[in-house]
Amino acid sequence: MIPTKDRRRVVIEGVEPEIDGGRFPIKRTLGERVIVEADVFADGHDAVACVLQYRKEQDPGWHEAPMRSLSNDRWRAEFQVTAMGRYRYTITAWVDHFLSWRNELNKRVDPKDIEIALQMGAQLLQETAARVGRSNTAWLKKQAQFLSSDDALAARTQVALGEALAYKMACYPDRRSATTYERELAVVVDDERARFSSWYELFPRSWGAVDRHGTFKDVEAELPYITAMGFDVLYLPPIHPIGRINRKGKNNSLVGEPDDVGSPWAIGSHEGGHKSIHTDLGTLEDFRRLVAKARNHGIEMALDIALQCAPDHPYVRDHPTWFRRRPDGTVQYAENPPKKYQDIYPFHFETEDRRPLYEEIKSVFLFWLEQGVRIFRVDNPHTKPCPLWEWIIGEIKRDHPQVIFLSEAFTRPKVMYRLARLGFSQSYTYFAWRNTKQELIDYLTELTRTEVREYFRPNFWPNTPDILTEYLQFGGRSAFQVRLVLAGTLAANYGIYGPAFELCEHTPREPGSEEYLSSEKYEIRNWDLNRTDSLKDFVGRLNRIRRENPALQSDCSLRFHPTDNEQLICYSKATEDMSNLILVVVNLDPWHLQSGWVELLLDELRLEPDRPYQLHDLLSDARYLWHGPKNYVALDSDVLPAHIFRLRRRIRSERDFDYFM
Amino acid sequence: MIPTKDRRRVVIEGVEPEIDGGRFPIKRTLGERVIVEADVFADGHDAVACVLQYRKEQDPGWHEAPMRSLSNDRWRAEFQVTAMGRYRYTITAWVDHFLSWRNELNKRVDPKDIEIALQMGAQLLQETAARVGRSNTAWLKKQAQFLSSDDALAARTQVALGEALAYKMACYPDRRSATTYERELAVVVDDERARFSSWYELFPRSWGAVDRHGTFKDVEAELPYITAMGFDVLYLPPIHPIGRINRKGKNNSLVGEPDDVGSPWAIGSHEGGHKSIHTDLGTLEDFRRLVAKARNHGIEMALDIALQCAPDHPYVRDHPTWFRRRPDGTVQYAENPPKKYQDIYPFHFETEDRRPLYEEIKSVFLFWLEQGVRIFRVDNPHTKPCPLWEWIIGEIKRDHPQVIFLSEAFTRPKVMYRLARLGFSQSYTYFAWRNTKQELIDYLTELTRTEVREYFRPNFWPNTPDILTEYLQFGGRSAFQVRLVLAGTLAANYGIYGPAFELCEHTPREPGSEEYLSSEKYEIRNWDLNRTDSLKDFVGRLNRIRRENPALQSDCSLRFHPTDNEQLICYSKATEDMSNLILVVVNLDPWHLQSGWVELLLDELRLEPDRPYQLHDLLSDARYLWHGPKNYVALDSDVLPAHIFRLRRRIRSERDFDYFM
Repeated sequence: MIPTKDRRRVVIEGVEPEIDGGRFPIKRTLGERVIVEADVFADGHDAVACVLQYRKEQDPGWHEAPMRSLSNDRWRAEFQVTAMGRYRYTITAWVDHFLSWRNELNKRVDPKDIEIALQMGAQLLQETAARVGRSNTAWLKKQAQFLSSDDALAARTQVALGEALAYKMACYPDRRSATTYERELAVVVDDERARFSSWYELFPRSWGAVDRHGTFKDVEAELPYITAMGFDVLYLPPIHPIGRINRKGKNNSLVGEPDDVGSPWAIGSHEGGHKSIHTDLGTLEDFRRLVAKARNHGIEMALDIALQCAPDHPYVRDHPTWFRRRPDGTVQYAENPPKKYQDIYPFHFETEDRRPLYEEIKSVFLFWLEQGVRIFRVDNPHTKPCPLWEWIIGEIKRDHPQVIFLSEAFTRPKVMYRLARLGFSQSYTYFAWRNTKQELIDYLTELTRTEVREYFRPNFWPNTPDILTEYLQFGGRSAFQVRLVLAGTLAANYGIYGPAFELCEHTPREPGSEEYLSSEKYEIRNWDLNRTDSLKDFVGRLNRIRRENPALQSDCSLRFHPTDNEQLICYSKATEDMSNLILVVVNLDPWHLQSGWVELLLDELRLEPDRPYQLHDLLSDARYLWHGPKNYVALDSDVLPAHIFRLRRRIRSERDFDYFM
Repeated sequence: MIPTKDRRRVVIEGVEPEIDGGRFPIKRTLGERVIVEADVFADGHDAVACVLQYRKEQDPGWHEAPMRSLSNDRWRAEFQVTAMGRYRYTITAWVDHFLSWRNELNKRVDPKDIEIALQMGAQLLQETAARVGRSNTAWLKKQAQFLSSDDALAARTQVALGEALAYKMACYPDRRSATTYERELAVVVDDERARFSSWYELFPRSWGAVDRHGTFKDVEAELPYITAMGFDVLYLPPIHPIGRINRKGKNNSLVGEPDDVGSPWAIGSHEGGHKSIHTDLGTLEDFRRLVAKARNHGIEMALDIALQCAPDHPYVRDHPTWFRRRPDGTVQYAENPPKKYQDIYPFHFETEDRRPLYEEIKSVFLFWLEQGVRIFRVDNPHTKPCPLWEWIIGEIKRDHPQVIFLSEAFTRPKVMYRLARLGFSQSYTYFAWRNTKQELIDYLTELTRTEVREYFRPNFWPNTPDILTEYLQFGGRSAFQVRLVLAGTLAANYGIYGPAFELCEHTPREPGSEEYLSSEKYEIRNWDLNRTDSLKDFVGRLNRIRRENPALQSDCSLRFHPTDNEQLICYSKATEDMSNLILVVVNLDPWHLQSGWVELLLDELRLEPDRPYQLHDLLSDARYLWHGPKNYVALDSDVLPAHIFRLRRRIRSERDFDYFM
């Protein structure tokens, strides 16, 4: 094919952001900006004009933002997303013949050349007027006549190069040979809570009176406790009937006692399955009331969706093809040899009978949406097929764009990132196992300074019912403070599993294990929420700081600053306009006082090297005056292992008095 | 759409090499390898199998190479390209149920579990036999019977985990739910000369007797001179009739004398155009003979294709729509204001009448192909539309895959790289203006250590008829040696414009200019090829070193080694098997002796830190013994400003005598 029909001389390439050649959308939350850059150029010396085009996916027409040229043929523009759902963006560029002509005229010296150029310009104006063909092009025609008239060269050149003409011609671009980038790229716009959220996980059955199974009503009664700590997402493990066949006993023992309550993740019994509520927790009505009351406290309920069944789940009886059978006729239970989970049957996603299975799974999400749930924490999504997630999340978010999906994929990095690209709004991370300064810097750099940040929103958890790290086991109370401050200031999304966390529960089931002793996964615990050594006030302070400082409500601005002590980590976050600027220093050593020099990257913080600045520690309320990049810090873990400074540039001095004016 | 028909559980992503999401092919030369890597994984714990598929584009079926797992879900395989033209490659992967089962069986401990696993294995074998349905699956069925028999568990487990069964099952993979990567990627395979070539540019008209216009026959007579210097590409500026209208005079003067010969790039007169030969050079028959004779000397002829016309080119008369008219009726000449080229009319590629223009341009290439030319040096391709090049090069190489196109695009980097992606086999570079150590390291790192190397083959020229750099103007004879050694050892493709180069011609037309005084572009020069200060023997030595050392015949292995003197640059190149290893040290200061310590990256060179190695300087024939990473070098520009060492690991010592055995 001869490309003679192809008049497109402009090349558009190197578009960013663009994930996997446009295969996946990027993510934003309501009100955020999308900054788009591209390499745009044409053959020869002609000038190029370039616009960023964007629209809500369902809208018919594009909005356009002119792109401005940076250097080295790089162009940039941005747009703001103001509605939840999907946006599209692409780029269109064309050779701007008027601007090319104007640039050349500007370089002309010889009057003969200028005369010819003016004649050519007049021609171009006439052609434009003819092409546009509107009545208000009379002005243009008049200019054309003037350019080709006998008037003085200087006068005509002045009009030719004038802003008025340039402005008018920019209104009538000749885009007949424009190049439009070959891909329409997508943005998924989520609720703000997808970017900034503070999660609290609890087992409702432990929140009753001593020796009684807790209920939704008990949780409802404790909402003020959770609110006082400042959380805005309340996450409940599965609330469905728990299987009785092969039910695990306390501490995950293979054979339980008759009164053992079992694991909430062993879902389903003769009382019902994924759309039923465990009768000991209350009724569906109770649940809906809890959802509503929590919302009144500014708290959204997050539900755990674990796509697996106890042996006595109704699905097992009603849909035998949804499970794998072993040669002895029994159903295949979950295994990761030599580990066995006899109380759990995984779905057989390779079954020939997939359609009803997929539809049923979707209906589970829809059912809880109808009960008021807007956030789903999905259990082990990496053990289910990728196409399932892309379909389900796409289906749900098409009609309910505000829904948030948290991926609990503690698995290999490539799989974790793929799930994020497939549509999960947030993801658990490796944070729990990143403890040293270099580990934290490396991991956060990957999350916030590479393409990963366009689609993967980390949610940092210092503990979960499955994860009691060695750092927490051995580090004492200050270890909990350290990990809380790190989670809540490094990541805009974070969460704790409580009350185990605020009560510094730190005993593992056995040495070398990351499982809790007497884990709530298998038994009811009674927590003394009012213990004097509880961290609840500290947690409350941290969450208040997060709420009051927009710098901590997103992750892109994170920068690390050098320190000369491996146990001291220092980093900053700021709003785009730098009006809110937070500087954090943490002593990673939970046992000793550590001191040293931090060296701030003043340019990154837009601080002048020769003016002092004030640091207000939002944890201790102390204030410091610093000057220049190098400053001394000492943090005693026994007192408070971290500073969270609000940094203020403006310090009153004698220059503020009138007589300096 | 419910993805229930989609059984593909394997994800394939992050494929490398892949240019712009598969929009452009990568490049290789005959016999080279294509190493392909990808991230490949599935949900859950199942084992994955993965093959690289490749074929010549016109072949119907794929060859397959099993990919091997590296770490972090990365897989790798390679294939060799053994024919010129286009290859395709992609990746197919699937969940390997047998391997998954085998891995699990390996972890089983409980005899009851092992028994069930064996039964499941037997089932899998039976299913496989049924699916394959061939007579030679009897063995498989026998194994299935044995696995499910009453024989001892240990005996059956041994067979189940045995290599024989694994080998057989690998012959019958179940690929019904295989994922094939969504893109077929392409490789353009060129002649070896696209990777390794030594160019010599000359103006034939200067090669006659004094005061006579040189001819093809004169060049033919001097082929031994060019051969002695070791070049294998002879590049001639345009050989067509030169326009007489507005012909430029000596030193690019606007008005020439009647006997001025004009610029060969002002193509066309009443005697003919792009398919004609300047009568003073000889006949078409002479040209064909020169091509053939050169080939006998191992030299390929490269022709200059400059898509532009002198005002008296027949095209101007016969195809008025191929040129832009100015308002005064004259044809628009080439301009880059305030510079003017009144002797040259560019084509108007935006004309409505493009098809005959494009076809004519294609026919120019085909015409010279028929005369035996296999290499085209394309003048200023960046001032012609990109779609033209992609089409022309695609068309020509489809039928003539051995043809090489060199892009003379001295323009902005993005445009330069785009032209390479569109199909140019080699490209001029910024080498001429990269003189300091850091400039050279930065530029070569970009060319050889980034994705650029997959599609952009640099051709390094220390000088051209348009480029006499300040370094050459002021650096004296050793500056020419320095730049020659750098060009010929940093880049496998390089060239010089001679005899200006070997005769160290260094006077610019005026101070601050990069144009030669009395440039051959506008007049006939008489060169004394036998001057005693000629670098011809030095050039010959360098080219012999290049020919004899395969390490210097490609660019991917280039590594820089630190030195403690900014004027000393040190780098190495090696063959893949390290059998040929070249180490170069150059004194970049053409005025002074420079000395210092070089610090070899021993790991990169696979040298042991505790054994000595020998350096044989292929320029001076001197030999040195070095030991460990740090060694001293002194280079006197007045003597010889560079070492080109062949590095030999094996050094005889007393341990080689029998009594040490």
